[in-house]
Amino acid sequence: MLEQLKKIVCQANAELPKYGLVTFTWGNVSGFDRESGLMVIKPSGVPYEELQPEQMVVVDLDGNVVEGTMRPSSDTPTHLVLYRSFPNVGGIVHTHSPWATIWSQAGQGIPALGTTQADYFYGTIPCTRPMTNAEIEGAYEAETGNVIVETFHGINPDRVPGVLVNSHAPFAWGKDAMDALHNAVVLEEVAKMAYHTRQLNAGIPSMNQTLLDKHYLRKHGANAYYGQPGDSKH
Amino acid sequence: MLEQLKKIVCQANAELPKYGLVTFTWGNVSGFDRESGLMVIKPSGVPYEELQPEQMVVVDLDGNVVEGTMRPSSDTPTHLVLYRSFPNVGGIVHTHSPWATIWSQAGQGIPALGTTQADYFYGTIPCTRPMTNAEIEGAYEAETGNVIVETFHGINPDRVPGVLVNSHAPFAWGKDAMDALHNAVVLEEVAKMAYHTRQLNAGIPSMNQTLLDKHYLRKHGANAYYGQPGDSKH
Amino acid sequence: MLEQLKKIVCQANAELPKYGLVTFTWGNVSGFDRESGLMVIKPSGVPYEELQPEQMVVVDLDGNVVEGTMRPSSDTPTHLVLYRSFPNVGGIVHTHSPWATIWSQAGQGIPALGTTQADYFYGTIPCTRPMTNAEIEGAYEAETGNVIVETFHGINPDRVPGVLVNSHAPFAWGKDAMDALHNAVVLEEVAKMAYHTRQLNAGIPSMNQTLLDKHYLRKHGANAYYGQPGDSKH
Amino acid sequence: MLEQLKKIVCQANAELPKYGLVTFTWGNVSGFDRESGLMVIKPSGVPYEELQPEQMVVVDLDGNVVEGTMRPSSDTPTHLVLYRSFPNVGGIVHTHSPWATIWSQAGQGIPALGTTQADYFYGTIPCTRPMTNAEIEGAYEAETGNVIVETFHGINPDRVPGVLVNSHAPFAWGKDAMDALHNAVVLEEVAKMAYHTRQLNAGIPSMNQTLLDKHYLRKHGANAYYGQPGDSKH
Repeated sequence: MLEQLKKIVCQANAELPKYGLVTFTWGNVSGFDRESGLMVIKPSGVPYEELQPEQMVVVDLDGNVVEGTMRPSSDTPTHLVLYRSFPNVGGIVHTHSPWATIWSQAGQGIPALGTTQADYFYGTIPCTRPMTNAEIEGAYEAETGNVIVETFHGINPDRVPGVLVNSHAPFAWGKDAMDALHNAVVLEEVAKMAYHTRQLNAGIPSMNQTLLDKHYLRKHGANAYYGQPGDSKH
Repeated sequence: MLEQLKKIVCQANAELPKYGLVTFTWGNVSGFDRESGLMVIKPSGVPYEELQPEQMVVVDLDGNVVEGTMRPSSDTPTHLVLYRSFPNVGGIVHTHSPWATIWSQAGQGIPALGTTQADYFYGTIPCTRPMTNAEIEGAYEAETGNVIVETFHGINPDRVPGVLVNSHAPFAWGKDAMDALHNAVVLEEVAKMAYHTRQLNAGIPSMNQTLLDKHYLRKHGANAYYGQPGDSKH
Repeated sequence: MLEQLKKIVCQANAELPKYGLVTFTWGNVSGFDRESGLMVIKPSGVPYEELQPEQMVVVDLDGNVVEGTMRPSSDTPTHLVLYRSFPNVGGIVHTHSPWATIWSQAGQGIPALGTTQADYFYGTIPCTRPMTNAEIEGAYEAETGNVIVETFHGINPDRVPGVLVNSHAPFAWGKDAMDALHNAVVLEEVAKMAYHTRQLNAGIPSMNQTLLDKHYLRKHGANAYYGQPGDSKH
Repeated sequence: MLEQLKKIVCQANAELPKYGLVTFTWGNVSGFDRESGLMVIKPSGVPYEELQPEQMVVVDLDGNVVEGTMRPSSDTPTHLVLYRSFPNVGGIVHTHSPWATIWSQAGQGIPALGTTQADYFYGTIPCTRPMTNAEIEGAYEAETGNVIVETFHGINPDRVPGVLVNSHAPFAWGKDAMDALHNAVVLEEVAKMAYHTRQLNAGIPSMNQTLLDKHYLRKHGANAYYGQPGDSKH
């Protein structure tokens, strides 16, 4: 079942250490098959270097394990909320990558300060509000998804493919698992650069909107002219 | 004698460089066999890449070398105090890993600012008070252990498996040597992230207690649900 | 056509990851043949590890593709402006290397604070003014070149072989592609050191002009005495 | 001539990149044979990975090349001043390692803030005064040595085996080339940790003198008890 998707999700998980996004097993990648409504996700607590495609867990949108002998990642309910709410998302990455986590812990969104961010994120990468005690003590992982969705009221998740969960860490997404991984790497890099930019020049405002438009739109959408014809956005 | 423990302690020492915790020989790992009351520890000043299990030194709780031809780590008396005082500890790691050492040198405990710390440490990772001149000039290494134990009056060392020694560097521990190594890696990572979080947002308080409870308790204790059934906490 | 230059430009591009200057495909190197008036540049969006010399794109000074089946880097017009305006430049490197990008995002030039910078850059590495909306909405990539050239009114680009583009990232250049790569690596290193120097001592002024002269001139120009006789400057 | 010393000096130079102390050829190691009064030093501008023992240059205390076909490092006169002035020094390392260079550029000595520094340096690692224009325009490299020696009036160079040259970069030394390399690595590490300690706690004073004594003296001198009997200090 979903053998091709399992391979891709397995590979995306296995690449997390290569990009310096994870310590131990602090991260997970999922992929979603919109046709069948099934999600493929990493099993909980298994080291990346040992992961095999057949260990991936298949879960339906209600969180029932449809295939697989291992427990899915404990963050499964968060992933499911996002797939249900963001109709164009086909892959999600959650890590505790250090620079993005630092902004999460500081409770601050990452302002767009330069073209690196503008090439992938159409503006600020938002940070969620703190969760309430009721949310934390309730269906915590699902509520984490809900507070992310709430944060994107008025923001297009296709154009801002990532978020910082307050006091926690980032989630990034994309049209598929590899695209989500790509965005997770970018999120970490822009988090690092924005941190130091603000240390160097505390009063620097967000970048010029015209420059943001230019960079985002030359790589995304109908008039994109970056890369080779027929490429995806990269 | 204790051949299996020697292998594990040797391996845990050998992994210190892989995690970026040590420069030269600035670190040591020990393991403790509660049944026999004997500790196995790295010999002093030997490079990690050359370490062999048979070089490990076996020491009793009074610090007498029971087996081994080399001197044990000069920090041996500190380890012994901790094994005597913390009844569930089976492994100890001491390093000068840079981020944890920075907090030690600053004389400040690491506040719990996010779920990464909450997954492993149930609150602030404390920093000891400065040692007195009498303690330094006396049985210095044993007194280092004593000041750690004093710091944990009112703190459960099973739930906060690490400490910063003032003007010195961290110690971490766990149920065995590998678990202690795991906690030493986490300690270094949360030290790095807490430093930058405070630089980005100087006034950020410690995290919500309910969120701390949630994360610590979903991985530890009777109701843990992270990882695979039958796993240890990781 | 220009087979030797294609090999060198391909190699210089392939070395960008080795020096930690790039994430994904965020950088490009070109070389210029003054005799024929043709530029060789990386194709857009192709990973460095897969690059082959025959994939390099040959472009004339008006931006027409003279040879090659792929699109040239989207930054091609910027490179061309620099080759037209700076008569001794034979190679250009553009990256989003993090430390130089941080200064670009902060909108600040990198002051000469020590001899490392003085060995390669004869003074401050300037940051361009913000581009106007008309420039951004017009021939953006060419205008990026124009604002760099404007920044060098009164500065000799042979003696300050690099620039920070405001809200964007650095360009570095040299007598050929390898020399430009060398200067891009130096630019990143001095950006990192200047950032931290200013954090440690916010009021530190630019270095003594006599010391700047000494270091720059002992490596560059008629009286250089660094390296072996017959070497280029390095 | 001095074949064994050439091998060691060559090896110490070759290890500079392994410890992250150098970019390109920004560093050099020398060794001194007190019996013959001859120094062996790296040739100027040659990459470390290509260095061969027979390329090392032999220079007498007046700077005359006694053996070797290549130019010695341009810093040769600085090394010679130190060998002439510090009678127990047998090896010298000069690099532009980033963290030590940051303190040099800030014009500040590195205070002893913890036991890592105390294990190798008996107090603050000093920074030289700025050089005068006359010194810079005169015999610059020899004057660099002279200002280092001036800085050590009242400081024992055997107990503080390194210095920061103002607006420039560090020199470290030891009883031989490998010992000097060891001290250069420590200098870089304590520079990094002291920087961040001061950022975290700007008012933190130098460490307790009794603790400094304890750590320095347990590794150095007659009563040392660290490492294995018969070892050198490490």
